[in-house]
Amino acid sequence: MSQSQNVAVVGLGSMGYGIAQSLIRAGHQVNGFDVSSEAQNRLRAEGGSSHTVSDIAGSIDALVVVVLNAQQLQAVLFDDPAWANQMKPGSVVIACPTIAPAIAKQLCEQCKSKGIHYLDAPISGGAVKAAAGQLSVMASGSDAAFSAARTTLDATAETVFELGNNAGAGSAMKAVNQMLAGVHIATMAEAMTFGMTQGIEPAELVKVISQCAGTSWMFENRAPHIVNGDYTPHSSVNIWPKDLGIVLEIAQQANYAAPITQTALAQFAAAAKSGLGSEDDAAVAKVYAKQAGVKLPGQ
Amino acid sequence: MSQSQNVAVVGLGSMGYGIAQSLIRAGHQVNGFDVSSEAQNRLRAEGGSSHTVSDIAGSIDALVVVVLNAQQLQAVLFDDPAWANQMKPGSVVIACPTIAPAIAKQLCEQCKSKGIHYLDAPISGGAVKAAAGQLSVMASGSDAAFSAARTTLDATAETVFELGNNAGAGSAMKAVNQMLAGVHIATMAEAMTFGMTQGIEPAELVKVISQCAGTSWMFENRAPHIVNGDYTPHSSVNIWPKDLGIVLEIAQQANYAAPITQTALAQFAAAAKSGLGSEDDAAVAKVYAKQAGVKLPGQ
Repeated sequence: MSQSQNVAVVGLGSMGYGIAQSLIRAGHQVNGFDVSSEAQNRLRAEGGSSHTVSDIAGSIDALVVVVLNAQQLQAVLFDDPAWANQMKPGSVVIACPTIAPAIAKQLCEQCKSKGIHYLDAPISGGAVKAAAGQLSVMASGSDAAFSAARTTLDATAETVFELGNNAGAGSAMKAVNQMLAGVHIATMAEAMTFGMTQGIEPAELVKVISQCAGTSWMFENRAPHIVNGDYTPHSSVNIWPKDLGIVLEIAQQANYAAPITQTALAQFAAAAKSGLGSEDDAAVAKVYAKQAGVKLPGQ
Repeated sequence: MSQSQNVAVVGLGSMGYGIAQSLIRAGHQVNGFDVSSEAQNRLRAEGGSSHTVSDIAGSIDALVVVVLNAQQLQAVLFDDPAWANQMKPGSVVIACPTIAPAIAKQLCEQCKSKGIHYLDAPISGGAVKAAAGQLSVMASGSDAAFSAARTTLDATAETVFELGNNAGAGSAMKAVNQMLAGVHIATMAEAMTFGMTQGIEPAELVKVISQCAGTSWMFENRAPHIVNGDYTPHSSVNIWPKDLGIVLEIAQQANYAAPITQTALAQFAAAAKSGLGSEDDAAVAKVYAKQAGVKLPGQ
């Protein structure tokens, strides 16, 4: 058993909240912070601590940042109240958003100059796995950063991919995974709706394709949502213009053309624009169905 | 054990040849025909019969047509020597190429008018599975067509998806599968090369992504070819401009826009145009690598 630690979690959306819950369950002192005081209060009711930032920033062992993007991450660390300016030497920032590898490197350097460790640690797995302490983490950083983060990782992750000593490698691998995952969801939608234009029942498509070379993890996970006409957001359409946008930004900085990713992004953007942003990402099929005059199950 | 049958196989490319071998191994009388006399002679040396078309067309139980496209299939059936005009009532045409469902329906009607059965039966699995009698078949047709084809299917296929009574459904399902498979290969290439621009080792990409939500059957099957720098064609680049072309033709007839498929097709077409047509389809990564100035393993 690892000793009880002091951990702050900034950003109590579905992922951050689940991380905070898992840490409390593992016996740690957990302070949660969010722009929404509702989420903070809910966490306190579940056993979270209620210190202010200035009370505890100097005494935490780890800061888990679970915000939306690089800009917010940077703000948490260096804008007032500037956690990174207050944290004690040897403590660690565990940075969970999907960001450009170059920015991860730069934030790592800035933290290092203040004597604190930085773990580039994008997460995946969704809200349910976050709450269960079973996330996947694509992590890179110095051995000292991994050591300092170990207790938190043990309480929150089922799988930690250790991707070397340089901040940025975790973010790069996450970007590759998001590229594939996003394209596969949009392609699942393109293929399912195409099959329906040819008169094949959606359930038959899922049954057969899942056993064939055309299958993907995302096909098997998301196509059933279309069959059931159930667009309860496990992961929403809105995630993809953001995540594929970050992927394409990274690609552009490397002068890398990613035409398939770009095309998939356009389909998610069209879905968001037509009001489907907060539905499950499988709802990108509705863009195809509308264009083709196909009725999806439940429509 | 089913009784020995008379079967003709037209088209002795890698798939047709494997089908003929499997039928011989199962104890059937097999006549193979091909534009190349070399393939015909080779099959005879392995136990194939050596009748002429006019000798045996009237006595075969099944005609397996393993040609490249709808035009060739149509020619085999109805252009001189016009197998369909000579086959006996109750015999069956097993049509293996990937074609438009509407054409499958039409060919089925034409066969029916001559008293012969038609099984819409696109195949997949590649040359090795064809030789082993372990193909996957996406089949549709009347009960009588399935009955008449059963002995041949038993000898050549591991999995037969029975997709209903109407010719065209097999071809439609195959088109959906090819859409997904083709896009997933090109996306694998886009993602692998993207990862390399970010300094990730190709072997590391395969190891991590295979365990994540970004994986696909094609990623796991083809990405190792890039890691090993081995482009021995298990399935060649040239297949995809053809197969995705057929998919888009079917889509267009249904007024269905398939932008991701279109983008993937453009990448395969670029690969074929730059002289990679006869390499393994994973070589589409070379198009990305060249554009990005990345060196793939073995290059």
